[in-house]
This record gives sequence, C-alpha cells and structure tokens, in this order.
Amino acid sequence: MFRRVLIANRGEIAVRIIRACRELDIETVAVHSTADAGALHVQLATQSVCVGPPRAAESYLNLSALLTAALETGCDAIHPGYGFLSENPEFADLCAKCDLCFIGPPGDVIRQMGSKAAARTLMRQSGVPVVPGSDGPVADAAQAAAAAAAVGYPVLVKASAGGGGRGMRRVDSPEQMDALFAAARGEAEACFGDGALYVEKLIQAPRHIEFQILADAHGNVVHLGERDCSIQRKNQKLIEESPSRALDEALRGSMGAAAVAAARAAGYRSAGTVEFVLDRTGHFYFIEMNTRIQVEHPVTEAVTGVDLVREQLRIAAGLPLSVTQEQLRPSGHAMECRINAEDPRRNFAPAPGRTAFLHLPGGPGVRVDTALFPGYDLPPYYDSLAAKLIVHAPTRLECIRRMRRALEELIIEGYPTTADLAHLILYHPEFVKGTYDTGFLEQHMDELLAWACG
Amino acid sequence: MFRRVLIANRGEIAVRIIRACRELDIETVAVHSTADAGALHVQLATQSVCVGPPRAAESYLNLSALLTAALETGCDAIHPGYGFLSENPEFADLCAKCDLCFIGPPGDVIRQMGSKAAARTLMRQSGVPVVPGSDGPVADAAQAAAAAAAVGYPVLVKASAGGGGRGMRRVDSPEQMDALFAAARGEAEACFGDGALYVEKLIQAPRHIEFQILADAHGNVVHLGERDCSIQRKNQKLIEESPSRALDEALRGSMGAAAVAAARAAGYRSAGTVEFVLDRTGHFYFIEMNTRIQVEHPVTEAVTGVDLVREQLRIAAGLPLSVTQEQLRPSGHAMECRINAEDPRRNFAPAPGRTAFLHLPGGPGVRVDTALFPGYDLPPYYDSLAAKLIVHAPTRLECIRRMRRALEELIIEGYPTTADLAHLILYHPEFVKGTYDTGFLEQHMDELLAWACG
Repeated sequence: MFRRVLIANRGEIAVRIIRACRELDIETVAVHSTADAGALHVQLATQSVCVGPPRAAESYLNLSALLTAALETGCDAIHPGYGFLSENPEFADLCAKCDLCFIGPPGDVIRQMGSKAAARTLMRQSGVPVVPGSDGPVADAAQAAAAAAAVGYPVLVKASAGGGGRGMRRVDSPEQMDALFAAARGEAEACFGDGALYVEKLIQAPRHIEFQILADAHGNVVHLGERDCSIQRKNQKLIEESPSRALDEALRGSMGAAAVAAARAAGYRSAGTVEFVLDRTGHFYFIEMNTRIQVEHPVTEAVTGVDLVREQLRIAAGLPLSVTQEQLRPSGHAMECRINAEDPRRNFAPAPGRTAFLHLPGGPGVRVDTALFPGYDLPPYYDSLAAKLIVHAPTRLECIRRMRRALEELIIEGYPTTADLAHLILYHPEFVKGTYDTGFLEQHMDELLAWACG
Repeated sequence: MFRRVLIANRGEIAVRIIRACRELDIETVAVHSTADAGALHVQLATQSVCVGPPRAAESYLNLSALLTAALETGCDAIHPGYGFLSENPEFADLCAKCDLCFIGPPGDVIRQMGSKAAARTLMRQSGVPVVPGSDGPVADAAQAAAAAAAVGYPVLVKASAGGGGRGMRRVDSPEQMDALFAAARGEAEACFGDGALYVEKLIQAPRHIEFQILADAHGNVVHLGERDCSIQRKNQKLIEESPSRALDEALRGSMGAAAVAAARAAGYRSAGTVEFVLDRTGHFYFIEMNTRIQVEHPVTEAVTGVDLVREQLRIAAGLPLSVTQEQLRPSGHAMECRINAEDPRRNFAPAPGRTAFLHLPGGPGVRVDTALFPGYDLPPYYDSLAAKLIVHAPTRLECIRRMRRALEELIIEGYPTTADLAHLILYHPEFVKGTYDTGFLEQHMDELLAWACG
C-alpha cells in the first residue's frame, strides 16, 4: 500500500480522500491555493503545500506545481478527486513519467473515454447500445442533417470533446441545422479547442441512470448497481438515489451487464461510472463513461457497504477488488442531496460567504460529507457545492422521510443554499412516486418556488 | 400510529426520539427545565413545555408536571428515553391511568425486572442461567455467609432494588461479611429506601455482554445480537461494540436464545436489553434486564439496520415487529464511543461549559448522536454525556481504524472530554486484540494517561 498520497483537490472530496487514507494508515499531503490556506482539507492532512494563487488555473490545475509538490514531499501516489485534473490524460501520463501512481485509470483510457465520439464507436463495437446517431464526427452541417434524417428529429449536435452541455445544441428540424451547427462548433472550439461535432437522436423525457463499476488490474470487473440522477438543473445533478424506481431486476441485470462490458471494452481500471439514458419504453443507451470518482458515490456506498475511495486506493496499489459480483447485495435505499451555496430564487447564482452558524443533521442512517465548519469562509473561486447529505433506510419511502428530517435539521447561516429546494422536491408527488425524468426540475421549478413563497 | 408524543427526557436521547417521530410524521412535545430552554431538543420539537427548575427532581422527574404537560398539549403517548423516569413503574402506571400510552413495557414488567432478586428468581425458574448465589434476599449477615460458603468466595452482596453499583460490596472471606453486609444494607436503604440484599458469586474478569431484544404485543420476540460493553469505568460504559470477540456462533446462539427466553418469561413488550456476564470458561449468567432503550442502542442499529426507537413506537401502537429472527442478519462491525464532558485526568470530574467550537466527524460509516451545537452551554445539572460517536465497517479492524479517524476529526472546545482517552484505548493492544474484560480500564488507566502525557 502507498506510504504517502498527494490529494490534488480541495473541498469535501479532498476531505473524503483523507478519510479513506487515514483508515488505511496512509499519510496525506494536501495542496491548496492561497485562498484555501485555512480550509478543512489542509487542517486534516498530514502536511500541506501551497500550490498557487486562488485561480484554479494557477493552483489546482497547475500540473507542474502539483507534481513538484508530490515529489518534494516524497509522495508515491496522487489522487485527483473529481473535476480539476481528474480526467486530464496528460496529468495521468505525467504522473506515470514521474514514477507517481495516478489513482485512476491509465491516461489512454481517460483519453479514449474523453472523446465522446471515440467512446461511442468503441461501445457500438462492443455491443453496448448507444444513442442512434452519426458514426463518429460529421464534417459539416450537411452531413449532420443527413445523419439526423436517418435517425429522425429532434437530434442533438454535440461536441466530441464536450461535457456539461457546452458545445451542444438541440435541433428540431432540417431548417435549423445550419445555424445551430455553426453555433455548436463555435462553442466547442472556444470551450475545448476542438470543433469536432457528432449527431445523436434526442431521447425525450429520459431518466439519467448511471452504473458504478470497479475494475482491478487482475481482470476483475464488477458493477455496484445504479444511481438515478434525473433530478438535474442544466445537467447539474441535485438529488441522486439508488435503486431507481425505473428499473426492475431484469433491466438492472442487462444494464449492469452492459456497464461491465463497457468497462471491459475500455480496458478500465479503478472506480468509474457508465452513464446511460433510459427512455420511457425501457430502452437504454450509453452516453458516456466518467473516469473518476463521482460526487454522488456515497449513494452507492450506502446501499453496498463498499468504500469506493478505499477500493480506488487498493486497485491503484495493485490489490484485487475486495468484493465479487456475487457478494454484492445492495440493501435498502439511499439518496443524496447536494447542498450548493446558490440562491435558487436568483437563478441559482453562486452566493458564497462566511458560515456564520452550522448545524449538521445526525442520527441513524444519516451521513454528511462536507468541508464546512463554523466560521469557514466559502471562497468564491470554486464550485458551489457546500455539503452532501446522504441518507440510507430500509425502503424508499422511509428514505424520503429520513432525508426530509435530515434537511429540517440542517442549518447553514451566512449564505443561501439549495437545501430548501431539495426539501420541497422531496414533497413533490412526482418525486414521491418516483416517476420523474430529467425534465422534472425545469418543468416544476415555478411551482416549487411558489410553494416556498406560499 | 400516534398523533403527538411527549418526550419526557432531554439531551441526545430526546433528539434521537424526535428524529424517529419525525420520520413517522408524529408531532413531538419537548419538555425542558428552565436550564434547558435553549436546548436542541426544544428547538427540534413541534412544541415545548417548561416543566420546572433545573434540578431533575423538580422537572424531568416531576411526574405530575409531565403528565399535565402531555394532557394539556393533546399527546396520546409518552416516550421516557433512558434514565429519569424510564424505569419507574409508577410513572408507567400513571400514564395508563391518564389514557396516555407509555412507550415501554407495562408497569408490572418494569416492577418485576426492577427487583433484582425477583428477576433472578424468575430467570432461574425459566431456565435462564443466573449467577450462583442466594435464592432471593437474605435476612442477615449469617444467612449471607451461609449462601457465600455454598457458592464459594469471593461474593457480591447486592441491593435487591439496586443498580449502578450502589448498595453493593465485594466480600472475600467469611470474616469480612458482618461489616460489609451492614455497609451494603445502609447504602441500599439510603439510596433505594429498601435494605433487602442478596448474595451472588463474584465472576472474576468477566465480559459484560448484553443482548438487544424486541417484543411486540402479538407474541413475537426477537434478539438483535449482542453488544460487548466491557470497557467500563465504575460500571459506566465507555465503549461498546458488536459483535463481541468473545462469542462464537454457538455461544451467540445459546445466549440469544436465553435472552429471548428471559423476555418471554418477563412478559416483555418494547425494546429491552438482557445483560449477562460471561466468564473465561464460556459460561454466561443473567444479571439484569434493562426495560428501556439504552445509550448504546445505535451499535445494534448499525449492524442490523433496524431503527430501534421506531420499533418502540410501532410496538407501543400495537403494530407487529418489522423483522423476524430469520430476517435479522447483522452485517459488519460497529462501535460506539461515549464522549463525556469529564476530565479523565481529574478522576473524570464532570466539567461542563460553553461549546466554544464544534466540529463533528463525517464521511462513510460514521454516525453522530448529540444535542451539542456551536455556542451551546452544557448545563451542570444532568449527566455528562455530550456526544456519541458510532462507526460501522465491514470488519472489526476497519471499524477500529474508522473510529480512530472519526475521533481525530472530532473537535469540541470549551471543556475537557473523554474523546482522547477513547482514542488511546483504540490503540491499546488488548483492545485491538479484543481480549479485554470489565477490568480493562481500571487496570490500564495509569498506562493510558502516561501515553497521553508522553
């Protein structure tokens, strides 16, 4: 096992990784920008190194500063967390060149899965269903229109290098194609330095279902069941749960098998997520593979009892998986609410500030992952995730009730958060029934805000 | 199910009960002394009633004030928590007379189990092994000496109405009997108003093993496995765990069966605990039954996934148990550390004060039950329990490591606590091996304090 791990991240995920390392008696080196000198991850780590000014490009994304810090502190591995450099294949390659173990998949796997068009092609070749569309990138709007005609409108024109909805346009008819294709290409070039676009049929009112997988260096690949992440705002997940109400055992079995096949086809190693959309008729399609630990990983930890970050560390150290597919018997129901320091009434504008008072929920079945503490100044430079509330209970209804009461106990004073919105969603009939799709939040936002004001 | 429950308690257990009620959509009425007006349980309850001045005898033990509060607020049930009136049969009877459901066993069951001599007799008659000793109370020192001679010295002379070590003396030889018998009688009369004494063989270096049971009004009785509570200081438990390293499956089976037999013999209903001592040769003996929810109940909740307070509410409402013995498959390992506001270096003197800063641990497998919040003034009038840390992990060693890191994350500023002592115990070879007995803390206290100072 590793002796000392550098954590190339901040916030709750850095704290999460420190926890896993401590439980394995691994020393930790925290890195921080000048804005994060007093942050919790810095306080909890064995030691810490300042890697630059507040702007992430100069600190948390500063490859050479991070590698230098790791080498100078005698680390033997780097955990990238999520975001920042976690899916940057050059960083993974550079780690390997510096004889530092990158805790994640090999750079080439990140590279291949990072290209959406390449990933689609690989999956199609491996028998994993993908959304009907163009076979790889299209050269121009005319080729895009031809592919769209073949699968039927509406379609999405998507950046091959894309993510987070950038470089993506919905096209409803052939007449719209020229203008929207140009717009998508411009955005893709601006955001990713790569204007390659491909075409996908738009799956209407889908569920976003993702499967957690683990793969080790000995050829073992398992899936740990699904997470339903359909409660989203502009592709940002707000509430995740497992199991999904949309899956029965047969569908879970075939989607799980597809996720394992996808991981095997990619030559995957580490924890990863295979994302699917599921349409109303029970057909599912691969959309992408996330080659990192995800924000919502605790949902799966709650139902399986498997510590996913611990597994990442073990896999990177060459150890076999702790569990077999047969031993994995998810039990009960789990949910996560992301508590963002954003104001839902002001179009979710980030609203960081000083944590004037803090009371976190506790009691049975409640887990809190956060880097907040009383008096902590949430800096304005990074993402707005302030805390994650995860609850686990024997049944979905008990889980919903437990999450409601956990949210009622949560007090964060000093800035607005999405906690009240999450609480309202947990009372919405469609959520309670579990019939929601990815359009839920957009469709019901006005109604939810009206409840809040009523 | 109940509409509104009065919680005749304070501190973390009142918060715990509010959580269970909220998850069942039951309204809660908190009671509080004038010292507790700003306490967390008061803030979390649906409504609250002040029942008297700080001294417990005038507030939390004030039967008529509590019953009046329950009736005036329209409650249909009362949950007594632990301590205070939880094992007072008159209170249970009075609740019944007022048409208030007492959430616990019937008054007569509390009464019978409250008399240690009567409980011993009942258990012996029911085939549950009891510590060898006198058949019921002895009349005088001569009878005590005869009983002691029959079972062999050393023996304990114990108050029939006793508990917590009061009215109890260890007697090592016939010559000591007269003086120690008189001392025990005097203390028993002073503490319990009842000088009845009985004799028990002293089980040397035992483990304290207790079994959690649940019994409903429909004749269902199950046990939820054991808790090893041998880490004690003067009969006050400090660390509890489940499963116990001292039990194998066969012994667990026979002790579990004895616990169920004990509950059946008592005509038990609600959650309860059957306490045993286990000697070095694998013989176990009933010592007493606790007719309440216990401080350490979360240990069992962690390994079984059963919400014990929820079950208490369900049982009291006449519902059947949620689980059968066959469905109960405890998984993994759980531990609880009690964090008391006491100074271990000053002989555990209670040391309440203002909670100047508070950081609670989080992450996977960690549960915190506490009524603390930043700025909270811990009042000096009540017991010194400030927080309970409960962790759950797949194996005992992972559980120990997780508890260590949870304790390392815990920060309570403003008063000394037992957290550091717990942390030291978790590194002691005897604890790590799991070979400790109830003498552990007394035997190793100097060594542990020396570590702390080293």
